[in-house]
Amino acid sequence: MAQQQGSLSLGREAWSTWPRYEAAVLGFPNYWYPVLWSRQLKKKPVGITLMGQPVMFFRSGGKAYALRDRCPHRGIPLHHGEQHFPGTLSCAYHGWTYDLESGTLVASITDGPDSPICGKVRVQTFPVEERLGLLWVYMGQGTPPPVEDDIPAELLEKPVTVCGRISERKGNWRLAAENGFDQGHAKYLHRNTPFVFFRKMPVWDRSHVVPIEDGKWIARVTDEVHFDTDFPGLGRFPTRKQWWKRRGGAPRGGSPLRLPGMLRVAYPEWSHYEWYVPLDEGHHRYLQIAVKFSQGLKGWLFRLKYWTNLRWIFHGLFNDQDALMVEDMDSPPERLYRPDVSIIAWRKLCEHPRGTEGVLTEPITESDLPAIAEPVS
Amino acid sequence: MAQQQGSLSLGREAWSTWPRYEAAVLGFPNYWYPVLWSRQLKKKPVGITLMGQPVMFFRSGGKAYALRDRCPHRGIPLHHGEQHFPGTLSCAYHGWTYDLESGTLVASITDGPDSPICGKVRVQTFPVEERLGLLWVYMGQGTPPPVEDDIPAELLEKPVTVCGRISERKGNWRLAAENGFDQGHAKYLHRNTPFVFFRKMPVWDRSHVVPIEDGKWIARVTDEVHFDTDFPGLGRFPTRKQWWKRRGGAPRGGSPLRLPGMLRVAYPEWSHYEWYVPLDEGHHRYLQIAVKFSQGLKGWLFRLKYWTNLRWIFHGLFNDQDALMVEDMDSPPERLYRPDVSIIAWRKLCEHPRGTEGVLTEPITESDLPAIAEPVS
Amino acid sequence: MAQQQGSLSLGREAWSTWPRYEAAVLGFPNYWYPVLWSRQLKKKPVGITLMGQPVMFFRSGGKAYALRDRCPHRGIPLHHGEQHFPGTLSCAYHGWTYDLESGTLVASITDGPDSPICGKVRVQTFPVEERLGLLWVYMGQGTPPPVEDDIPAELLEKPVTVCGRISERKGNWRLAAENGFDQGHAKYLHRNTPFVFFRKMPVWDRSHVVPIEDGKWIARVTDEVHFDTDFPGLGRFPTRKQWWKRRGGAPRGGSPLRLPGMLRVAYPEWSHYEWYVPLDEGHHRYLQIAVKFSQGLKGWLFRLKYWTNLRWIFHGLFNDQDALMVEDMDSPPERLYRPDVSIIAWRKLCEHPRGTEGVLTEPITESDLPAIAEPVS
Repeated sequence: MAQQQGSLSLGREAWSTWPRYEAAVLGFPNYWYPVLWSRQLKKKPVGITLMGQPVMFFRSGGKAYALRDRCPHRGIPLHHGEQHFPGTLSCAYHGWTYDLESGTLVASITDGPDSPICGKVRVQTFPVEERLGLLWVYMGQGTPPPVEDDIPAELLEKPVTVCGRISERKGNWRLAAENGFDQGHAKYLHRNTPFVFFRKMPVWDRSHVVPIEDGKWIARVTDEVHFDTDFPGLGRFPTRKQWWKRRGGAPRGGSPLRLPGMLRVAYPEWSHYEWYVPLDEGHHRYLQIAVKFSQGLKGWLFRLKYWTNLRWIFHGLFNDQDALMVEDMDSPPERLYRPDVSIIAWRKLCEHPRGTEGVLTEPITESDLPAIAEPVS
Repeated sequence: MAQQQGSLSLGREAWSTWPRYEAAVLGFPNYWYPVLWSRQLKKKPVGITLMGQPVMFFRSGGKAYALRDRCPHRGIPLHHGEQHFPGTLSCAYHGWTYDLESGTLVASITDGPDSPICGKVRVQTFPVEERLGLLWVYMGQGTPPPVEDDIPAELLEKPVTVCGRISERKGNWRLAAENGFDQGHAKYLHRNTPFVFFRKMPVWDRSHVVPIEDGKWIARVTDEVHFDTDFPGLGRFPTRKQWWKRRGGAPRGGSPLRLPGMLRVAYPEWSHYEWYVPLDEGHHRYLQIAVKFSQGLKGWLFRLKYWTNLRWIFHGLFNDQDALMVEDMDSPPERLYRPDVSIIAWRKLCEHPRGTEGVLTEPITESDLPAIAEPVS
Repeated sequence: MAQQQGSLSLGREAWSTWPRYEAAVLGFPNYWYPVLWSRQLKKKPVGITLMGQPVMFFRSGGKAYALRDRCPHRGIPLHHGEQHFPGTLSCAYHGWTYDLESGTLVASITDGPDSPICGKVRVQTFPVEERLGLLWVYMGQGTPPPVEDDIPAELLEKPVTVCGRISERKGNWRLAAENGFDQGHAKYLHRNTPFVFFRKMPVWDRSHVVPIEDGKWIARVTDEVHFDTDFPGLGRFPTRKQWWKRRGGAPRGGSPLRLPGMLRVAYPEWSHYEWYVPLDEGHHRYLQIAVKFSQGLKGWLFRLKYWTNLRWIFHGLFNDQDALMVEDMDSPPERLYRPDVSIIAWRKLCEHPRGTEGVLTEPITESDLPAIAEPVS
């Protein structure tokens, strides 16, 4: 990248301050990631690149499986294959047949029942679970934790109605996660989107971040909020009165974020959750879930509201503004400012992923920000 | 490439066992390759990248020529050019005019008849021949052998009617050649394609490979053939009875393959030939030729059959299944199995290309396969 | 690149003979480049990659500004932004607000009026001027010269009517510049384009090049011109009589070229100017300007002629032939010939860009050409 004139080195940030965060280009493997709607996995295998690896999902006997999507014979993706025998999948090219549970080659159809290679080849398998109508996969080392450990507790304990959207977006997953928790942008970038047509957005605020639930989540705590503001020498912002807008309606609970990249935004009547699932260096799978903590009639009314309004106004127009930013964001080098206490907190959280020692216990405040540069000459 | 869990090193194959095969990314230059239908080369030059080099074909006075497709002056492709004087081609940019036979610059139109550069510049030329309605080019070193040396004898000795299709496909030419001769896949991958709707395909067989015609071709010899088969612990394959299918109708003669990548599949009534012509590392030109060893009325009836049936059912639907495999194949690393005796034989043949010593004389059997790995733990 | 058989090393040219020319992949920064029509910059910012750098143009209070198109905060392109306060532009993401004149961060809307980062961050700015209905930018070091220094004097001194076309083209800007001044190609490549339907083009000529206006421009001086010509052993060129063509109508004044890549072609009734503005290694912005040295009624009649004829016949059909050559040109290696005295002259001029010592004073003649190779064997 060309050098930037006018950016001094003091206070300028590279990502080396947070080595685990910097290394997590392809995500944090020791977590469960949601990938697909359960209803998307029917009779045909589905191939997806996840965390830089080809993975094939397949449903057999009602149960979902995930295997590395590459036949060890000649490298053909297994998602071209089909099932001949229960509990197995056969590669499309030569009929190498793998046990879905263990990944072991149990038959090599074109080499007959006495094929000597059977039992000598194994394809990597990944644990899969289904919760909330979603398919979750674990690509980490060792015995996985219960999938419940990676799902917000309230989604498992209460009756829920879940709607949502899964899409592929450009940009590294870390930029998507930072955009989600970013304290600064929502009130500015989204100030005119239809979702907040009647809501007066603050101009600026000051906040700090606290770990909650034993350091599992980080949540923002707002210390001051300011609306119409005079900027000395420039003028008042917003520059125009918008009499039809009212204060309030903001999400509650600090819109917390947790590893491996999951955000909760709790509105009074419903909650939004989103995940940033690493595909490769420059793409992530973006899961947006709208949840009503009711079922039955209230659940159906929420579904109606989702498909006629929220899907378009919130998951569409609102979050598409974020997509453009995540796609065009380009860091480092970067210059952080006071509201980036939320960014700093997230990167600190990333230094304590599952399987490492320590946990985030202290609040993160403006004093954790890097020193600001000398005035430019 | 990410490491594959469950693939032990013993029995796992890289291509370094066959150094000439491994080096032949762009093909074997000391052979004639068919490239175009003769009828495709009319008045306009045709530019094609062959074996990684830009080549221009041009017809003048009825004769076809091939020149390196780059004017030495400023690098403009000569296929943009045109002919002003018999036996020459002029570059479109400044009228540098090359003798088609020798490649020598014989006039530089915009520099006048006394241009001092004439005779001082030469463009590389490649020998071209026309046989069977096809245009053949030789891009190797030294005096080329007669083109007949690289054409199956029966195609030159008997009366023939030739139909076919030339297309560009993804994947290195070696993977295409291996797919062509591959013992294992035809009976499985193609088992349900319309071309074999009435033909019962074997489930598995065992075979060895023999050099024929003084080691020019390698041909498969089938030692056992098995149809409906029980796979212990899994079940019977095929899983469903297909009462309308009958045995027989398989090609004869072991569907032999020869250098530089030419396959013959002899059906009782007609024969199929195919060539895999290297373009660049990841693309090849795929020539599919259907031949009837008759002319006159029988020839015309065959043409009718080709254009109404074979072109669609065989060269289309059947061979397109291969195209998908060749495009998605990804080796090494690879794990070979018993039917891959055909793959091993081809790679051994590639170690004896024209211009090197030695020839393949011994049959290739299952004992030539690499040792199979220990059972996975 | 594969070696070219038949090209000996003597007389074969790499570009290392002209080190500043060779290094100028992204142009010569110490010059003003025209980039946009003034009328193209209205209320919305415009982002363009220039000389390999992202640049944003924005009009405020009637004046045009250029800033580096990257917010130092998180790297978001500033051209997504908008204006809230006169003389500033705010980044779309967090409202970082930059003074357009100095590039200094004057407000950070989402961090309040006391944001400590204000005044500590600066975005690089580039001087911008508007002349002839075009927007000019200076991306060099130090104080820029007056923009008039980089505009042909006659365009500033006389009344003018300016029409034209701005487009993006493939190929490095140097190849486009060389094509523009190239002595050899026009009479051959363009011999049959509609623009010269009634004009008999020479077949060949001999010329030298002289510096004019104190070495600012280089201009071709034609020493001999030849029309129908016999090429010994080949025949007469043109090969066919074109009785409706007449001599004359050629541009006057040697179609001079100057740094940083600007060509003038003076026809009796109007003049054509073109610029080759470097975008990145493989693309340039191509500005084609048709100028009538009159205003009022004559100006409007010229506009009519431009939009009904010249735009299509000259800036379209004629110059599109050049575009194909520039896109497909591939040098070095190259072999220069006698008419390339114009190319040599341009490369010599490139060795004296603004900010270096020396100036081109001597004519460039055929004796400046590299020695021609021995005849090929």
